[in-house]
Amino acid sequence: MVIEVKYEIEKTKANQACDILNELEIDAWLVWVRETSQMADPVLDLVLGGDLVWQSALIFTSTGEKIGIVGNFDKDGVDAKGIYDHIIPYTTGIKDELVKQLSKIDPEKIAINYSTNDVAADGLSVGMHMLLQDYLRNTPFSNRLISAENLIQKLRGRKTSEEVARIRKAVEITEDIFEKAKRFVKVGMTELEIYDFFHQSMKKHGVTSAWDDDHNPAVDAGPYKQFGHAGPTESKTEENQLLHFDFGVKYNGYCSDIQRMFFFGQKNDIPSEVQDAFETVRDGIQAAAKFVKPGAVGYEVDAVARDFVKAADYEEYQHALGHQLGRLAHDGGALLGPKWERYGDSPMGVVEVGNVFTLEFYVTTSNYGQVSLEEDILITREGCEFLSKPQQELICIN
Amino acid sequence: MVIEVKYEIEKTKANQACDILNELEIDAWLVWVRETSQMADPVLDLVLGGDLVWQSALIFTSTGEKIGIVGNFDKDGVDAKGIYDHIIPYTTGIKDELVKQLSKIDPEKIAINYSTNDVAADGLSVGMHMLLQDYLRNTPFSNRLISAENLIQKLRGRKTSEEVARIRKAVEITEDIFEKAKRFVKVGMTELEIYDFFHQSMKKHGVTSAWDDDHNPAVDAGPYKQFGHAGPTESKTEENQLLHFDFGVKYNGYCSDIQRMFFFGQKNDIPSEVQDAFETVRDGIQAAAKFVKPGAVGYEVDAVARDFVKAADYEEYQHALGHQLGRLAHDGGALLGPKWERYGDSPMGVVEVGNVFTLEFYVTTSNYGQVSLEEDILITREGCEFLSKPQQELICIN
Repeated sequence: MVIEVKYEIEKTKANQACDILNELEIDAWLVWVRETSQMADPVLDLVLGGDLVWQSALIFTSTGEKIGIVGNFDKDGVDAKGIYDHIIPYTTGIKDELVKQLSKIDPEKIAINYSTNDVAADGLSVGMHMLLQDYLRNTPFSNRLISAENLIQKLRGRKTSEEVARIRKAVEITEDIFEKAKRFVKVGMTELEIYDFFHQSMKKHGVTSAWDDDHNPAVDAGPYKQFGHAGPTESKTEENQLLHFDFGVKYNGYCSDIQRMFFFGQKNDIPSEVQDAFETVRDGIQAAAKFVKPGAVGYEVDAVARDFVKAADYEEYQHALGHQLGRLAHDGGALLGPKWERYGDSPMGVVEVGNVFTLEFYVTTSNYGQVSLEEDILITREGCEFLSKPQQELICIN
Repeated sequence: MVIEVKYEIEKTKANQACDILNELEIDAWLVWVRETSQMADPVLDLVLGGDLVWQSALIFTSTGEKIGIVGNFDKDGVDAKGIYDHIIPYTTGIKDELVKQLSKIDPEKIAINYSTNDVAADGLSVGMHMLLQDYLRNTPFSNRLISAENLIQKLRGRKTSEEVARIRKAVEITEDIFEKAKRFVKVGMTELEIYDFFHQSMKKHGVTSAWDDDHNPAVDAGPYKQFGHAGPTESKTEENQLLHFDFGVKYNGYCSDIQRMFFFGQKNDIPSEVQDAFETVRDGIQAAAKFVKPGAVGYEVDAVARDFVKAADYEEYQHALGHQLGRLAHDGGALLGPKWERYGDSPMGVVEVGNVFTLEFYVTTSNYGQVSLEEDILITREGCEFLSKPQQELICIN
């Protein structure tokens, strides 16, 4: 049972941010935003839960202080959330109050939200950065700005018990919808019909999409589609062919992300190349799950599954084995991925207790297209716990 | 009747972007994004209508070419929209393809999305900017990057007929809900009850909030609340007191934004200070509407209303007279506002044909709190046309 107290998670995360500042020996964290209904820094959901209109500064200190400097029209709304110790309103410009508050704290290091590696830690826009540099000119603080990447990754990654409870519930709802889909799907249905069934089911559960509705769920019927971010089409399911889903819901702000494979036919009809591909994916995920534990480095975990696939004589999957899961389906931080240019440093990230990851990959058959699965796991002290019930066999639809 | 063709607006806006590049003598525009489901550059809704996952480059040229370089899993989805001439997929890294495509075009000026003034033109993050500089190092392009502010402001501001049609419909739905609210609200209701009525009405119309649900509509009962971005409370409406709304809906991606004032009592019961305040706001808006036309500068329009208020011996309103309205409730570009620090250069913006603005302000009475109205206008060749039906009298609820 998830107990819902408004802004309780945001309060806990704001306090956790102060603790992590202390641990990392960073004096202050400055979340520097404006008009967030247009483009919101991804951390705002964690430490505010709502929007800010004028230029706003949320300041967290390693000593546990939480201060907000916001436009006068935002003051009451932010105050009412009870997350911040002081809310300071302004009318014509924020600069003086910003400099005044920083001078009081006099931080040696001020973390701000930019990162080349991690979009979830890269919420500061170029224009706002220019404004900040302008406002801090001729103060000692302009040279004390550092990246908050490490801080944000730990803050997002270390899920509180309430956060884990919400993800569990999102996974439970996702699995319930897959269960119902087993009875719904039939040979000859279009991907779009099946997609609509999932959306009706989400409505019944009162949940929304964990990512862009356009391709959630991804519904891939038959052998011709590359699994990816393309939406459902008028293609129809066929006897003796596969049906693939990539599906996640957002429950109370937190996401699931699960892939499942159906087969149209009897268990005995499954072609051996399909069965072999399925087992390779299923067992590769289990091999990675057995390996992963606190302290493991992202690329090492990816390599376990990648080597498993190569040893089974399949071409390696063209993406990372797993990403973190939380407020966002791609929640940033350490990535269980190969050291490719486009992943930056994220595969060098270290796995921590309380992280939630996906484990997912595909292999390609000669005649039946791709076979792909995805499970969700929680990192525990000893290793990991599956939040989803791993798919053990192809789901046969007769 | 709005005819809906999927991605038709996005196609039109993408072509309009090329035309504006030509007009501004900028060779190319680079929209440079990643994982946009986490934090999307506000222009993406205009020229893509959907999300991109890996690092992606959308390139528009003054010669009318539209090119996308996207991750391999995104290719099919973007291709299917039919907006871009070429979609180039990549797997391990985007750098080589980005440099190759820019070399083909060889632009003298490349506009990218940063702006200190305008959040709607400031969609590039600091981390992505650092990556871009890194990828373009040792190419001639690293020194050819300029701000796309002017381009984006013209692109957002110059509404096409289809965009105006959608805003008209959003306004029409908003006014319909206000009409029904006249019959629903009663003395003794809480702000929250009234808020819920608006949300049920939005559901019936199949529209969503034009801004954060938390304070849409703002519902302000009685004399004690500062109008702003605080949400509805358990405060109750009272006889002989005012009720204020700030409410906007999003219809098919486009917003309305309207403020209305109700009074609980007979027309004859309206205190003269309330009537005087109401007429000042109503007439101040009309004065600004008579003044505004293509070529007017933002702060000049604001000054008309501001001077009107001061001449009537009220304290001047602590915000801008009007903002643009479109995909976003605060759509960026020229602002009808005073030259205050926090507004940057936006009050220096010039009004153009096809712009949609709000006209809004409040004055404060001695005993009945604030009185505030907001109308939506379309800039025409000669001046402006009201999209909303301006409120002429206090709406009396008996």
